[in-house]
Amino acid sequence: MLENGVRIRVSGPIALLTDFGLDDAYVGVMKGVILSINPQAVVVDLCHQVAPQDVAAGAFLLATSYRYFPPTTIFVAVVDPGVGSARRAIALRTPHGTFVGPDNGLFGLVLADFGISAGAGTDRAILSGSDVAGVILANPHYFQPRVSSTFHGRDIFAPVAAHLSLGVPLSALGPVLTDVVVMSPLRPCRRGLELVGHVVYIDHFGNAITDVTAQDLEGADHLEIVVAGHHIRGLSRCYADRAGLLALIGSSDRLEIAVAGGSAAHLLGLRPGDEVIVRTGERA
Amino acid sequence: MLENGVRIRVSGPIALLTDFGLDDAYVGVMKGVILSINPQAVVVDLCHQVAPQDVAAGAFLLATSYRYFPPTTIFVAVVDPGVGSARRAIALRTPHGTFVGPDNGLFGLVLADFGISAGAGTDRAILSGSDVAGVILANPHYFQPRVSSTFHGRDIFAPVAAHLSLGVPLSALGPVLTDVVVMSPLRPCRRGLELVGHVVYIDHFGNAITDVTAQDLEGADHLEIVVAGHHIRGLSRCYADRAGLLALIGSSDRLEIAVAGGSAAHLLGLRPGDEVIVRTGERA
Amino acid sequence: MLENGVRIRVSGPIALLTDFGLDDAYVGVMKGVILSINPQAVVVDLCHQVAPQDVAAGAFLLATSYRYFPPTTIFVAVVDPGVGSARRAIALRTPHGTFVGPDNGLFGLVLADFGISAGAGTDRAILSGSDVAGVILANPHYFQPRVSSTFHGRDIFAPVAAHLSLGVPLSALGPVLTDVVVMSPLRPCRRGLELVGHVVYIDHFGNAITDVTAQDLEGADHLEIVVAGHHIRGLSRCYADRAGLLALIGSSDRLEIAVAGGSAAHLLGLRPGDEVIVRTGERA
Repeated sequence: MLENGVRIRVSGPIALLTDFGLDDAYVGVMKGVILSINPQAVVVDLCHQVAPQDVAAGAFLLATSYRYFPPTTIFVAVVDPGVGSARRAIALRTPHGTFVGPDNGLFGLVLADFGISAGAGTDRAILSGSDVAGVILANPHYFQPRVSSTFHGRDIFAPVAAHLSLGVPLSALGPVLTDVVVMSPLRPCRRGLELVGHVVYIDHFGNAITDVTAQDLEGADHLEIVVAGHHIRGLSRCYADRAGLLALIGSSDRLEIAVAGGSAAHLLGLRPGDEVIVRTGERA
Repeated sequence: MLENGVRIRVSGPIALLTDFGLDDAYVGVMKGVILSINPQAVVVDLCHQVAPQDVAAGAFLLATSYRYFPPTTIFVAVVDPGVGSARRAIALRTPHGTFVGPDNGLFGLVLADFGISAGAGTDRAILSGSDVAGVILANPHYFQPRVSSTFHGRDIFAPVAAHLSLGVPLSALGPVLTDVVVMSPLRPCRRGLELVGHVVYIDHFGNAITDVTAQDLEGADHLEIVVAGHHIRGLSRCYADRAGLLALIGSSDRLEIAVAGGSAAHLLGLRPGDEVIVRTGERA
Repeated sequence: MLENGVRIRVSGPIALLTDFGLDDAYVGVMKGVILSINPQAVVVDLCHQVAPQDVAAGAFLLATSYRYFPPTTIFVAVVDPGVGSARRAIALRTPHGTFVGPDNGLFGLVLADFGISAGAGTDRAILSGSDVAGVILANPHYFQPRVSSTFHGRDIFAPVAAHLSLGVPLSALGPVLTDVVVMSPLRPCRRGLELVGHVVYIDHFGNAITDVTAQDLEGADHLEIVVAGHHIRGLSRCYADRAGLLALIGSSDRLEIAVAGGSAAHLLGLRPGDEVIVRTGERA
């Protein structure tokens, strides 16, 4: 937006999530590109140490984070094993944030929050009729002058986000996006009297976060959790509640396996996908 | 503060120190919370790779850093094994910076700079009569709407810092804090003619920083340093001064054991707590 | 610059590149120093995980990054094994960015872009007659009040950059710099019908970036690349182009050895300096 001839910021911050790591200058270069286009941009790191090419982990981090940013935030997310291939580059405007990145499922868990999920037998969801508008990034006017086939974070996604932060309308970026790749969020299933959940993410402290939500456990009492052959009775309220292995509802409102002062993932050898079984008092 | 109806920043930057690491989005989420409350906030990373739950290392990094920031800086420090337990959440306003975090000793070395230290036989220090004002964070109006019991960095400390940066007075946050948990800084002791110091911190380069200060060595000559069975004669001025193992007064004005182009910690197997003995010419 | 009595920012961002890592507060402290001098400064991390004291890697990252930042950017680069020794502290103003750091070759690859290279049999290049102006940092008025001999990043380079960002002219910082340490960029050589290049950098994904540029390969067809005993036929366009080992022109316009979904460096045991041989159709 121009005011008295000066370009002013009309968006919230630009938040970056990538699997680029911090060993190289890839993330720094994206920031340089953004600041070259919008010197007033406020750029925030969401996370850059997503495991290389782990789209599911990127989707999890994005979905558990975006609500804590201003609704005007522009999220640039680049976990993109298919960079330069036929996969599309997209931007999505939701009621809480604009998302820019590859069309590979990275935004699937965010979209699920807005009621958008895959049709039966497909990994694609229809956007029409939803609160989310999308476009295919196709207008090279908003890209770097030369687009490499290996670094769209620098050449497409960062400059598009910078232009969006200056007030460029979504519609200027390319044709309307009608469907989008999503991934079905992992959900626990009932098996007899048990709820069978899964580890979905291991964090820096070795806490194993599951797909079992606080809501799934509402009203249940006399909980027993079985994980990697260990039995945990009851939920703790915080990490300091007791020594050793414990289970609690973590900060993302999900069942989490932890060890006070240690790493549950290390102690039990846990990895994403491992089963976490919940038995409740209803069983008795 | 409101000026022409616009909220303006009245503080310096908000500096963050945590043990959250950079593998997850925990730090990013804290920034999102801050920017949601104060979009003009300048947020700076002090360090996020404090060893998990190592309160002493966090205290060391904070104490050796805060003086280099503007006195108006708000420091949010979260190394918090007791999150969600009975430990209190506090804010301290000192002549050089405001500090927000858990009451677990993390601010103890900073407080020592202002003459605040523990009474005999206790780990608590009295604030009254000092230059430091403190409050217990108790007013949920300045917290996130829902406070988890495992992530006060996001739900209490980040929002409180953001509100402080908008000019909210300390007194609005809760009742006056009369005493605070501190940790007695490690100090070298005299043993006969020797000064017996300790490694207090190992840095990224493998330099072993000790509790022996430049002041402790003032006037001493013919220094000999004994560490892990090795003898080092004299102090070097800089890392390039000589090859191999050396000792010098480092950038935090403390005796430091280093290896030019290598890691002293690795070479000697040094860890925090290890003895570093200084023999001076006075002995001869 | 002063406007209505308020100091305003007259430069682009200040971008930081160091080998300090992120385990300590060294980088955070540099930001504190900058913000103490210029509270309006926009500070951006370019990279802090350059291998300790690897000046060549720092020079590579700087040279492949700076063009993506605004030309008004001030780059502070600190990979400085000789800190505190006789090596000089310098600032260089180029047509694309101002560079502040040690005179040890760190800026050599950037300077090569402006036609500045070492004379025969020397590692020094003459600045006069070029588009680049330089000074020796000698005026303590623009340093921290006390300058340590081990942390010039904090005590000299950060404060100088902050003052430059406020409009202090280069000439105020010290005497004119007439020559500067550079390093000759690695270049592939012809050996019979082969082009013999080298790995110059391994990135976070394990991609091995070489000194063979896109220009070196222009017009060549039927390419065969030999690396660590493996033969790769033809160039791929992107990482997803085929499974396993591949070669492509990467985002820095150089020949890169990669493995789709894996690490080429790990698979082939590659390290900087290793030979990468290109055979072209001209040979047949």
